[in-house]
Amino acid sequence: MATDAQQACFEAGIKFGSLYHQFAGTPVSPSSARSLEAAMAEAIENQPHCEAVEVTVHDDRVADAVDHENGYTELTGSLMDVRMRIAYEGVTVRTRMEMEDGYPLMKLVEVVDGGRPGSGDADSSPDADSSPDADPNA
Amino acid sequence: MATDAQQACFEAGIKFGSLYHQFAGTPVSPSSARSLEAAMAEAIENQPHCEAVEVTVHDDRVADAVDHENGYTELTGSLMDVRMRIAYEGVTVRTRMEMEDGYPLMKLVEVVDGGRPGSGDADSSPDADSSPDADPNA
Amino acid sequence: MATDAQQACFEAGIKFGSLYHQFAGTPVSPSSARSLEAAMAEAIENQPHCEAVEVTVHDDRVADAVDHENGYTELTGSLMDVRMRIAYEGVTVRTRMEMEDGYPLMKLVEVVDGGRPGSGDADSSPDADSSPDADPNA
Amino acid sequence: MATDAQQACFEAGIKFGSLYHQFAGTPVSPSSARSLEAAMAEAIENQPHCEAVEVTVHDDRVADAVDHENGYTELTGSLMDVRMRIAYEGVTVRTRMEMEDGYPLMKLVEVVDGGRPGSGDADSSPDADSSPDADPNA
Repeated sequence: MATDAQQACFEAGIKFGSLYHQFAGTPVSPSSARSLEAAMAEAIENQPHCEAVEVTVHDDRVADAVDHENGYTELTGSLMDVRMRIAYEGVTVRTRMEMEDGYPLMKLVEVVDGGRPGSGDADSSPDADSSPDADPNA
Repeated sequence: MATDAQQACFEAGIKFGSLYHQFAGTPVSPSSARSLEAAMAEAIENQPHCEAVEVTVHDDRVADAVDHENGYTELTGSLMDVRMRIAYEGVTVRTRMEMEDGYPLMKLVEVVDGGRPGSGDADSSPDADSSPDADPNA
Repeated sequence: MATDAQQACFEAGIKFGSLYHQFAGTPVSPSSARSLEAAMAEAIENQPHCEAVEVTVHDDRVADAVDHENGYTELTGSLMDVRMRIAYEGVTVRTRMEMEDGYPLMKLVEVVDGGRPGSGDADSSPDADSSPDADPNA
Repeated sequence: MATDAQQACFEAGIKFGSLYHQFAGTPVSPSSARSLEAAMAEAIENQPHCEAVEVTVHDDRVADAVDHENGYTELTGSLMDVRMRIAYEGVTVRTRMEMEDGYPLMKLVEVVDGGRPGSGDADSSPDADSSPDADPNA
């Protein structure tokens, strides 16, 4: 059997893979980036245990990537940052996708098990955030 | 060599296949349907020669399809209607996807070559629409 | 009403948009390129009026695009050539996607209406191919 | 910081979400199911830490789902079983997607941390499999 913290991390990974492979390749321009951000976040928030998703498509990177004859490019991981908060049986997982050394990396930022941040078996951290709002960083 | 009308129809088909296979499978619920409609339309409008796209996700069909334990379903052609207007070298093509006999069909609704509706070589129709606004039915 | 040739071109476009947006973003390496080529071709050949699809993923381009730390890249139009043959009510359409000026272009190569190549209303070409085999160039 | 076991579960989830949302919606028939199975498995095996993927598309379910006018359907989770083995820093994770109560569920089957199966902190199991072959059940 997996622990609740492991299960929460599995669920977090599913959401990341889903978001990326559902939407990578979507035609995008600075003028359509806002609706795509909203749709990506709301679509993935439908999935089980997904508390909050925040997608930022960087207009400057989109503009740089645009094929100037056609005025758009295709969405890839290098054009966006994504932050998510997953909750499973009292465990909260925060994840992030961002560029690192030129590649988009999906990362586990924090695993908080009932107020116990870190490995899931460390002591409770007094500054662990427990507010259940919609901010993926909360 | 293909005619401009044939090329316009080819372009119209590309947009339809793109929209369907980019977004089919997206998690959707009545509460996320609006952002998905907007993102689909704006994404495909980025593509060359695509003048207007209108996507209607039917909330009643989504609600019927929802897995009630999880509260969402995956987007398929049976949940939406799509209308597009493509313009290529003076030819305007109107297309539609809608349910017919239980299956979603992508259809050429009209091919208007410089005001000449129909096959592209018929006489000009006095009521052929030439207004270049954003309504896919215009 | 659209002509059969226009409808055939619309169908051809649908297949191209489908193939591209279904498979763009797929993780690919030189060692997985063969199975992906086969799956792409066979999947799209399922679609109505699609007679033959040939996909060539260029191993040299994949190797150049590979992130050498991870050993794979994501499929984009710049890594492959695609050729298709669509048949609709006696009209045969040949299409191709290949790099042109640094961008992958989807092109109508030929529209043959009952042996009449070109615009669909030209004279019959004696060397128009009518053999219904599986070669998209046939 | 997340533990290696948690990180391994996150990686496992990414692969599952990727596989599902990359390939859901692909046109499939009994005759194209084999090439799709192979492409799905080989594509996802490219991803980091992914040791083995086995995809079974059930021909009987595909045949039942086929639109008999067109002869194909679109891939969904209900048509296939998937098993994966992920390895991360000495932790092996086995996952499975299969139908349960009418819905396809992605599940963590086993987390083995350096020979310690289960929660990642249990005692070593004498029958824990440690052979690094290509069988996702190995």
